[in-house]
Amino acid sequence: MTLTLPAGLDVNVSPSPVAMVWNEPGSPHESVATPGIRLAPGDALVQVEYATVCGSDVHTVRGDRSAPSPLVLGHEQVGRVVALGDGATRADGSALELGDRVVWSVAVSCGSCDRCERGLQQKCRSLAKYGHERISRGWELTGGFATHVHVRAGSSIVVVDDALPAEVAAAASCATATAVAALEAASATVELDGALLLITGGGMVGLTAAAMAVEAGAEVILSDPDASRRALARRLGAIASDPRAKKGAAEHLDEVLAVRAQRGLVEILVAIEASGAGAAVETVIKRIGIGGVVVLVGSVSPGPAVALDAESIVRRLVTLKGVHNYSPSQLVRAVEFLERAHRTVPLARLVGATYPLDELDRALEDAASGVHVRVGVAPPTGPAR
Amino acid sequence: MTLTLPAGLDVNVSPSPVAMVWNEPGSPHESVATPGIRLAPGDALVQVEYATVCGSDVHTVRGDRSAPSPLVLGHEQVGRVVALGDGATRADGSALELGDRVVWSVAVSCGSCDRCERGLQQKCRSLAKYGHERISRGWELTGGFATHVHVRAGSSIVVVDDALPAEVAAAASCATATAVAALEAASATVELDGALLLITGGGMVGLTAAAMAVEAGAEVILSDPDASRRALARRLGAIASDPRAKKGAAEHLDEVLAVRAQRGLVEILVAIEASGAGAAVETVIKRIGIGGVVVLVGSVSPGPAVALDAESIVRRLVTLKGVHNYSPSQLVRAVEFLERAHRTVPLARLVGATYPLDELDRALEDAASGVHVRVGVAPPTGPAR
Repeated sequence: MTLTLPAGLDVNVSPSPVAMVWNEPGSPHESVATPGIRLAPGDALVQVEYATVCGSDVHTVRGDRSAPSPLVLGHEQVGRVVALGDGATRADGSALELGDRVVWSVAVSCGSCDRCERGLQQKCRSLAKYGHERISRGWELTGGFATHVHVRAGSSIVVVDDALPAEVAAAASCATATAVAALEAASATVELDGALLLITGGGMVGLTAAAMAVEAGAEVILSDPDASRRALARRLGAIASDPRAKKGAAEHLDEVLAVRAQRGLVEILVAIEASGAGAAVETVIKRIGIGGVVVLVGSVSPGPAVALDAESIVRRLVTLKGVHNYSPSQLVRAVEFLERAHRTVPLARLVGATYPLDELDRALEDAASGVHVRVGVAPPTGPAR
Repeated sequence: MTLTLPAGLDVNVSPSPVAMVWNEPGSPHESVATPGIRLAPGDALVQVEYATVCGSDVHTVRGDRSAPSPLVLGHEQVGRVVALGDGATRADGSALELGDRVVWSVAVSCGSCDRCERGLQQKCRSLAKYGHERISRGWELTGGFATHVHVRAGSSIVVVDDALPAEVAAAASCATATAVAALEAASATVELDGALLLITGGGMVGLTAAAMAVEAGAEVILSDPDASRRALARRLGAIASDPRAKKGAAEHLDEVLAVRAQRGLVEILVAIEASGAGAAVETVIKRIGIGGVVVLVGSVSPGPAVALDAESIVRRLVTLKGVHNYSPSQLVRAVEFLERAHRTVPLARLVGATYPLDELDRALEDAASGVHVRVGVAPPTGPAR
């Protein structure tokens, strides 16, 4: 069933790979069979084991942002290599092998343009992104909500250990790697170990960043209006704060900070804004201490302008960084984190429900409800597994 | 006339040091003699050779920002050490000597609080600043607009070469060191050599940063509405742009960028906002390229809020940094730059007029007019010179 092929030849998988194709807001997904896959040199065909629904999939389905269609959504997934184009490699440069259990970057990059050379592969001048591209002839299996994904040369492919639960591994290629990128952006300015760190937004990126920052030795406050997300934050080792709490209540940020101040942590020196809410952006910029760093990572759909007091940024020597996606090495470190942390940190709890692939529309509705941090989709077990 | 004294003893200089004392907006300076100076260990008495008027002095005199008074303004000056407290040292740790020609940091810092330990000596928990403090008993000679300054332990004192013109040396302790800080903040994110760099504001910080960035190998565009400042920018090796130019005019930023684009410099990757104008802050944030860095350094007085599009910051991976003052090592590098550059770069041209110290009010009026980048003040040559 699995085949190693010479460059540019066709792969035939039986039964045919199936992708869930999205056309427009309000229309259900269509299940489309794609019988013939042609792998170019460096490409791979991966049979999907599990995929998770990212907030950006929800934004697209709702019509909050424009997207080309027809489109296969999904860019957080784990699977096994079932066919190899000539010379396909892993992110570390070693040869990719049939049967490898892998995750891969959301970005397909050329590796040689000015942006790639500056380490901004996610902004490659000839970028393609899984889960974001109109289906084209020769690249039909472009997203994770499918039985298979056609992983193209220029993707960063990282092997994951069999012991890592699929629902934990799936998010590596978006939420986890983005959390790594956010914390690395912060730690270029402020050492995380011993720092007081505020995260606004208890979604997958915010909660994952909380777990990583706790591991790095930071004192982490996670602010989210949802009680169940605050409870998850506490399980990950963070202190919870409620942006809707009344002044004087224990979960009001002032009270949380007053407790820390008694222990000498007088300033928030790192803030990760992972909610995308304008009010939260204003809060982190206002609350950050002198010489501190604010990383904006949640603002990925259009919103009203935020008021910035330039004088205050200058006088407090604040650094503000936008982070979008991640570099290949950050995906490698994301997988390393998950393989290390999943044994002690309840990361699997972040995925609250799993749907069969053919119930993707229900999965997206559930994801949109916000009840769960992540919702997963599982294709039927294919013949190659 | 010059004396080395044991710790905590009095220095008597004849004639007595004189400070120009400012009381409130609209009132002229008063010339005040301060006959007895008591130097604590680590302190030094410096006879001022030349001082320059910083924009912040003008802001204070105009009442644009509150200031404690009575006050001796001025924090950009060069002079000679005429008396030494016990154990006074230079920034490099060596012993300060009588007759040293020196500049010193605007900040007096403790060196041991959390901020000092994080390299933010300019935000020391027990900070004092030359030219910014109410006169107090025991520290009367607190600013550069005087015949002498009482330089306190905790200041970073840097020796300057006799060959450096006084009007060039004077600005080291504010404008030059701040320009170093701005460029170092930028170069932590983007390599300056070969980068397309935009500076908004052709004041002392902007023009000095332009000269430094040209030396570092950047292609520098300096934007200022004033034609004489654009002419100065060109003499320093920058390309000039006029924010008031009509679309299509050669000095419109679009046209300037189009010429650079023909040579492959397609994105502004570094922007230094040195004007403090809200419109310029918005321009640099809007114009900065993907993965680029914006340094805000000009916004040092209150202004209206600037509109920030958080999504755009995220998607372009923009870094925005506030820079205020500088660290001791940045003052050292400022002096090194001036000593190196003054032989080939017309830095002395940035000081357009010199007034005697007792005409300080006229000097401030001239500085406020904006005709010159800097206006200088020269005390009468004292007996110790």
